Amino acid sequence: MTARAIDANRQAEVVAALVRALPAARVLHREEDTRPYECDGLTAYRELPMVVALPESEAEVQAVLRTCSALEVPVVARGAGTGLSGGALPSSRGVLLSLAKMKRILALDPIARVARVQPGVRNLAISEAAAPYDLYYAPDPSSQIACSIGGNVAENSGGVHCLKYGLTVHNVMRVRGVTMSGEAVELGSEALDAPGFDLLAAVVGSEGMLVVVTEATVRLVPKPELARCILASFGDVEKAGDAVAQVIAAGIIPAGLEMMDQPATRAVEEFVHAGYDLDAAAILLAEADGTPEEVAEDIARMRAVLEKAGATGIRVSRDEAERLTFWAGRKAAFPAVGRISPDYICMDGTIPRKRLAEMLRAIARLEQKYGLRCPNVFHAGDGNLHPLILFDANDPDQLRRTERFVEEVLELSVAFGGTITGEHGVGIEKINQMCLQFSPEELERFRGVKRAFDPAGLLNPEKNVPSLHRCAEYGRMHVRGGKLPHPELPLF
Amino acid sequence: MTARAIDANRQAEVVAALVRALPAARVLHREEDTRPYECDGLTAYRELPMVVALPESEAEVQAVLRTCSALEVPVVARGAGTGLSGGALPSSRGVLLSLAKMKRILALDPIARVARVQPGVRNLAISEAAAPYDLYYAPDPSSQIACSIGGNVAENSGGVHCLKYGLTVHNVMRVRGVTMSGEAVELGSEALDAPGFDLLAAVVGSEGMLVVVTEATVRLVPKPELARCILASFGDVEKAGDAVAQVIAAGIIPAGLEMMDQPATRAVEEFVHAGYDLDAAAILLAEADGTPEEVAEDIARMRAVLEKAGATGIRVSRDEAERLTFWAGRKAAFPAVGRISPDYICMDGTIPRKRLAEMLRAIARLEQKYGLRCPNVFHAGDGNLHPLILFDANDPDQLRRTERFVEEVLELSVAFGGTITGEHGVGIEKINQMCLQFSPEELERFRGVKRAFDPAGLLNPEKNVPSLHRCAEYGRMHVRGGKLPHPELPLF
Repeated sequence: MTARAIDANRQAEVVAALVRALPAARVLHREEDTRPYECDGLTAYRELPMVVALPESEAEVQAVLRTCSALEVPVVARGAGTGLSGGALPSSRGVLLSLAKMKRILALDPIARVARVQPGVRNLAISEAAAPYDLYYAPDPSSQIACSIGGNVAENSGGVHCLKYGLTVHNVMRVRGVTMSGEAVELGSEALDAPGFDLLAAVVGSEGMLVVVTEATVRLVPKPELARCILASFGDVEKAGDAVAQVIAAGIIPAGLEMMDQPATRAVEEFVHAGYDLDAAAILLAEADGTPEEVAEDIARMRAVLEKAGATGIRVSRDEAERLTFWAGRKAAFPAVGRISPDYICMDGTIPRKRLAEMLRAIARLEQKYGLRCPNVFHAGDGNLHPLILFDANDPDQLRRTERFVEEVLELSVAFGGTITGEHGVGIEKINQMCLQFSPEELERFRGVKRAFDPAGLLNPEKNVPSLHRCAEYGRMHVRGGKLPHPELPLF
Repeated sequence: MTARAIDANRQAEVVAALVRALPAARVLHREEDTRPYECDGLTAYRELPMVVALPESEAEVQAVLRTCSALEVPVVARGAGTGLSGGALPSSRGVLLSLAKMKRILALDPIARVARVQPGVRNLAISEAAAPYDLYYAPDPSSQIACSIGGNVAENSGGVHCLKYGLTVHNVMRVRGVTMSGEAVELGSEALDAPGFDLLAAVVGSEGMLVVVTEATVRLVPKPELARCILASFGDVEKAGDAVAQVIAAGIIPAGLEMMDQPATRAVEEFVHAGYDLDAAAILLAEADGTPEEVAEDIARMRAVLEKAGATGIRVSRDEAERLTFWAGRKAAFPAVGRISPDYICMDGTIPRKRLAEMLRAIARLEQKYGLRCPNVFHAGDGNLHPLILFDANDPDQLRRTERFVEEVLELSVAFGGTITGEHGVGIEKINQMCLQFSPEELERFRGVKRAFDPAGLLNPEKNVPSLHRCAEYGRMHVRGGKLPHPELPLF
């Protein structure tokens, strides 16, 4: 038999087994049906899944996973597919498990301030359902209109308000999920403590490698009485970077503290007309929320710090409409950049705030080195960087240069005492840099945790935690001038 | 050779190896030196450790653990020894590793509001060091004068203010520790997200089974401007239990919400004169903190709910001195009970708040059934119960009845949809009930996580996570009338 015939046989075998677990209409295998699932938001990487399964209940998820376990088929779970690190990139030998049909809000308790939802519920839909009670779900990724809570749990998603309100892990109280063997498990509880080992935080951000999320219980928070936003201009990106560190050092925790450089503001302004100062080398958005007294105090303190830090212009939103306009630009930054370049890749390193200015200088040098443009959009308050490298994926040389650019920024993030991901996850995109971030012993511990949940290694394989072999290859590739970038990392 | 001679030889071998890792004066092996380490706060269980090691630095902890790994000697880490579940009970064939000498505050940053401390630093010492900056460390176990932060991390300790401010896991940002193989590891970071699997929460509360803590970075919080406390009397314990559920259902999150029944208030009053109403069947302590406006509003709302719930008397602390007097009684409850009984055991189950009254009725029935007294002191707001069974450990029949009483309360906690531990940990005390709380698959997952950190199983063995064998034994013991108390638990 040819390889193609073997593949077709295998596909037929898997489909035949899955249609015993699900109605046949929800088991997709023809190319025109599986094509929409070939990538997530990291579109530079694509692979056609062998089969797509669309369960509608936890029992169906269990049935699919039991079937795949028995056949030793790898499974990749997928929410809305907005992830930016390729965590939902399918396997050509595997099943893509879409949770899109599980989109019911199961319970919403305004007194206890919790909502229990299925994984396919959109992030923003939770806040919409909570709005009549003046409550909302705090984490707000830019993709919040589309992204779903299951994917948010898998990637530990953030957003512009995470500085004050935390990431997904800080806002999820309980997760139900199914292990690769088909067992339904519950992690966390509404009680404060968990006997045994508390594995909820390990599952949040585990990129679908430990369990497939079938239900999440999330915390709702009261809408602040008032929010106001400062829009500050700087004539110099480094001064803007230092201003961020100074706001936090003054003991203020803004509801959001974002930075965009001029290439980013110019791309945005053409697209959404947020009223940004296009002559500024960089702008900061600094928000305060709470009671009117708290907001007035925080705005006054932030204004003073920003002026002292060299802001050339400061505007404060006069009403809610203006505040939303200020944010509209920031929230549209990624699509705006998408309009001015055939492709772009969004990085996600996190560094200590005090090194923001240094990182900006380094990125400017790398733009020269690789001959590529890189507008910068930062969750500056958390030190979380989103440099956006613009390139054309159809030009192999540009693609190669882009990949090296990304690698250098991630390596710098680690060298500056930071991490390779702030909120987008590792996925396939940053898997090599995990070899820099962690020692071989640490990676082996992660593999041990993976084995505790999925001994056969079938759930989202080859994502997030690199194999020993991959790190050895990466180490070989990256020996420069006889030295590894991270000297503690042994070659083998 | 006799067994005693074999033991003596083994001890000599371990001591000889350890004095190469530590100065001989910090390796204790004579009975008069090791006796003080024979138990922690769960004094009903005692065992003399083979050797006690007293490292003064992380490097020394690494040296001790490498030595013990090489010799396959089990190691039990110990902080101040105030734990109530026997988590620091030594092994007669092992090394007791006391962290008491590592008691330096390494850094305190009032701007970032964090402190970095060694494991032997006392809980209260952190707040004392932070006091000049109007900051404090929030978790406040009753033992906070004595207990150390390493033990707090190991047991995920709580306290009376955890309802609002969280347990240890919610207040620790980073932990450094050493694995059994001697590797230094760091979990968590000052950044929000952690690439790979986030194992910080799994290590907090892991009862010294994953790493030996050598450093903790904790969050400091601003001292509230004002705190006031309500002392409410009830003529009926069930009404008091229901009142707790009603306060929370009204959407109030008190800084503390505690309950004591009459036997507890009477024991306390003789000891500290807190001014409690001794005619009340139960009292509640309900605290509000924040700005004066917030406190006034919360106190007024809580007063209204408590009155409606049938409080027979309500006092509100008029000043800080009176507030501290109200709390002095609650904080002295354990030693007060210690004065009226040769021995007592403190339980730690957690149940949904709405079932507090039901649990109180059940405990009253069990007092009759076993002929033992049981004053009740509850962190009622979290549903965390501390019934204190009074007994005389020198009377084997009383000890046996006490053990059955404890088992029944823990089984009821699980049956009510709660958990067997709220803040004291599982240790040796509740290890059998872990077989009720978790399925065999869940326990096997915990064992998998344990193996990821400590493949040889030498770090605090036989605590927290029961073996398959132990659960099978427990199941056999507990088959009553042909039925297991928890029908999902298979016998083998």
